Amino acid sequence: MAKEITSRSENYAQWYNDLVIKADLAENSSVRGCMVIKPHGYAIWEKMQSELDKMFKASGHSNAYFPLFIPKSFFSREAAHVEGFAKECAVVTHYRLKNDPSGKGIIVDEDAKLEEELIIRPTSETIIWNTYKNWIQSYRDLPLLINQWANVVRWEMRTRLFLRTAEFLWQEGHTAHATREEAVEEALKILEIYSTFAEQFMAIPVVRGVKSESERFAGALETYAIEALMQDGKALQAGTSHFLGQNFARAFDVTFTNREGKLDWVWATSWGVSTRLIGALIMAHSDDDGLILPPRLAPLQVVIIPIYQKREQMEAIAPIAQKIKADLEKTGISVKFDDRDTQKPGWKFAEYEMKGVPVRLAIGPRDVENRTVEIARRDTRTKKTIPLEGVPDETRKLLDQIQEQIYQKALKFRNDNTFRVDTYEEFKELLDTRGGFMLAHWDGTAETEMKIKEETKATIRVIPVDSPGEKGTCIYSGKPSKRRVLFARAY
Amino acid sequence: MAKEITSRSENYAQWYNDLVIKADLAENSSVRGCMVIKPHGYAIWEKMQSELDKMFKASGHSNAYFPLFIPKSFFSREAAHVEGFAKECAVVTHYRLKNDPSGKGIIVDEDAKLEEELIIRPTSETIIWNTYKNWIQSYRDLPLLINQWANVVRWEMRTRLFLRTAEFLWQEGHTAHATREEAVEEALKILEIYSTFAEQFMAIPVVRGVKSESERFAGALETYAIEALMQDGKALQAGTSHFLGQNFARAFDVTFTNREGKLDWVWATSWGVSTRLIGALIMAHSDDDGLILPPRLAPLQVVIIPIYQKREQMEAIAPIAQKIKADLEKTGISVKFDDRDTQKPGWKFAEYEMKGVPVRLAIGPRDVENRTVEIARRDTRTKKTIPLEGVPDETRKLLDQIQEQIYQKALKFRNDNTFRVDTYEEFKELLDTRGGFMLAHWDGTAETEMKIKEETKATIRVIPVDSPGEKGTCIYSGKPSKRRVLFARAY
Repeated sequence: MAKEITSRSENYAQWYNDLVIKADLAENSSVRGCMVIKPHGYAIWEKMQSELDKMFKASGHSNAYFPLFIPKSFFSREAAHVEGFAKECAVVTHYRLKNDPSGKGIIVDEDAKLEEELIIRPTSETIIWNTYKNWIQSYRDLPLLINQWANVVRWEMRTRLFLRTAEFLWQEGHTAHATREEAVEEALKILEIYSTFAEQFMAIPVVRGVKSESERFAGALETYAIEALMQDGKALQAGTSHFLGQNFARAFDVTFTNREGKLDWVWATSWGVSTRLIGALIMAHSDDDGLILPPRLAPLQVVIIPIYQKREQMEAIAPIAQKIKADLEKTGISVKFDDRDTQKPGWKFAEYEMKGVPVRLAIGPRDVENRTVEIARRDTRTKKTIPLEGVPDETRKLLDQIQEQIYQKALKFRNDNTFRVDTYEEFKELLDTRGGFMLAHWDGTAETEMKIKEETKATIRVIPVDSPGEKGTCIYSGKPSKRRVLFARAY
Repeated sequence: MAKEITSRSENYAQWYNDLVIKADLAENSSVRGCMVIKPHGYAIWEKMQSELDKMFKASGHSNAYFPLFIPKSFFSREAAHVEGFAKECAVVTHYRLKNDPSGKGIIVDEDAKLEEELIIRPTSETIIWNTYKNWIQSYRDLPLLINQWANVVRWEMRTRLFLRTAEFLWQEGHTAHATREEAVEEALKILEIYSTFAEQFMAIPVVRGVKSESERFAGALETYAIEALMQDGKALQAGTSHFLGQNFARAFDVTFTNREGKLDWVWATSWGVSTRLIGALIMAHSDDDGLILPPRLAPLQVVIIPIYQKREQMEAIAPIAQKIKADLEKTGISVKFDDRDTQKPGWKFAEYEMKGVPVRLAIGPRDVENRTVEIARRDTRTKKTIPLEGVPDETRKLLDQIQEQIYQKALKFRNDNTFRVDTYEEFKELLDTRGGFMLAHWDGTAETEMKIKEETKATIRVIPVDSPGEKGTCIYSGKPSKRRVLFARAY
């Protein structure tokens, strides 16, 4: 009856792919590495956008829009950036097609070759800082707090729906400041916004931290990130916020007159989260029956399903369902009454479980008689029968409970799978048998980091911001270390 | 004191460009033909998006997202479409750059040439119908009512901010239906949504109508459009809705089993409005002092400006201003209290006039004494002093009045500049001396339409849907005609 998906224990990667397809979230398009985000998946993205956008605006940011195309030469201006971003990318070389003289369709018109190639933005620091040059003269023009919602393209070789696609949707903030302190403060403020969003809306606990030098954004002095743990024990980077120093200001010659009347380079941050978050949301909470969504990001929070065989039964159920729908909608809850007669109740139950609707209300002839409703929650799959007049209150309470409990469940999972590891043997053993987060001592060198990565595929996810100083010895080199850092295998 | 812009009477085109720049709406980027939409301009777009999106969703549409890239061969599948869209476009030919062996920056890696070139979408019918093929099997899968908010690229040679840019933002709806009637009904329903949006939110009266064959969308059986009249007497197409028949279903082999169990091609519509609407909004209402915005689309509806010389005066004004702000915000009005001490009141007045804030409240020491406030409206530039306790009510009323009156003003302008013309001489004379909409008889042939266009630059904007049948003779050929059509020179 239910749409079937591979179980997590059988094949986690296949479970994920099956779920994305069967829950109608996204699919691969006929363009290599690019996905089609289907209405149900896009509705989740819209909820995410709406909440994040409110938080950005409440903290003084405005939205704007910069070009999709970046002249090739812009990338060469910032030395680290060009290495990181200008390699695997989509290159526009021509601006016209023409009819094939042989009559077989259309071909590129070689007369319409661009003087300078254009790159489809993989990220927009370069074009934005080239623009900021004209916007900033004095400290009075600062800070400049701008965000952009946009599509970007990175020509990834191995792609997976939501997690890694050639084109993806994201927001990218680009701010300009008069002082180093203010820019660092901004980068950390955004890290806090991302954490709050992950924990309070996505119901995913995250570790806030700073990246090691080799994991930094190309062109940044410091990259802050939040890391989440998925059910298979792998980490997923759920948002990054970069302190860019004066690198892009120097590259694009953006100076300003400070309060003392002196000319200085402008300080910068950039930060972003993407449709990858939908992948994180799926992998953090869902089960073998399909998607589990936190109510605050569920496009549809409640579905009402009538159980009937005869038309008269449906006629008695419908007004009750309509009344519940209206009552719930008045309090801002999104509700659907699925009165289709083309599908059986059992099919509908499975369908909404697959799609992750948090609360299901079912009403049958006996409920009409007894003035009751069956209320079921998607996360625990428990249900009970309650009096009709209690439905609005119970539903509201249940939605809050689900939001809280799936967060607590994810938190417990993370705590149960975060290990303080003191030897390299134990580190490797745990990685292979359980996965999870490893808090271990590291000597602070890129060499050790690289060796560990080569030998175990585990990387330093972050140096947690709240990790206390603790003397120890590096699990790999045995050299002294001042604090534990967070290792994991990651998406 | 005020930022100066060219007057409309002196040079309308220059006035428009000056205004877009001085009101901080947009600017040209360093990429040919692509604009940067600045925060104030983007905020207007967000208001437009928000209202349109609500209307689309209320009429049963969902949002989704399809790839930016379209394989070149897709365009060749629909014969008319390829002629219309696959010519002036951005072509991606490579997917990698590499370091120039000579050490001078980066160059295209010729080893990373795509087997098939990818076109940056100029519109998405082809990729979407290629996707719909897998989504539609039976009449039960229909209708499919999907919209996409996206960027598109058309390699225009002559560009103007908002009105015609190589990259622009838009929404494109793509629906699939089981019957011709239902698809036509959908196309007309959207035309009605666009008209309502133009008239009730943008405060711009529009003529609803159908395009002549030569002005049709490439691939459509019928193109419906709304046409607006700008202050310089030129028309601007403000939205189009296309009945595509079964053309794209045939091109991409999208069939379904109908209620009778027979296989048929799916019926289609597509429809869109773009950031061009911001150009229309500017040109319909604004004046020589800057932008005039209808309150329902103004990102900032009310600004409060303190008038003071001494700090004590400001200290008396601030709490009053804060109270007004809080009171207005409670009723959903957006308000800013501009308490900056870096700018004089006169400078602020001019700044908010330039940016089109509909209502300005000014509070000086005498107002504090008398418990009054000066309330000024941007559109008519009239002002009066009112008692403090009346401010919330007066402001709300004034915003409604402004919305209504700028619509009425635009309507009167359009009525005063719509002419029933019966001879070609009069037609040409009026076009050159006054511009405006010309209702004239046309013989229905593409030849006549083309001749008139060549000789006068006027085109048939639409055949109005509500124009009554009326026998007459074509102004150009003298042949018989059954109804008047709407001619104008257009953007």
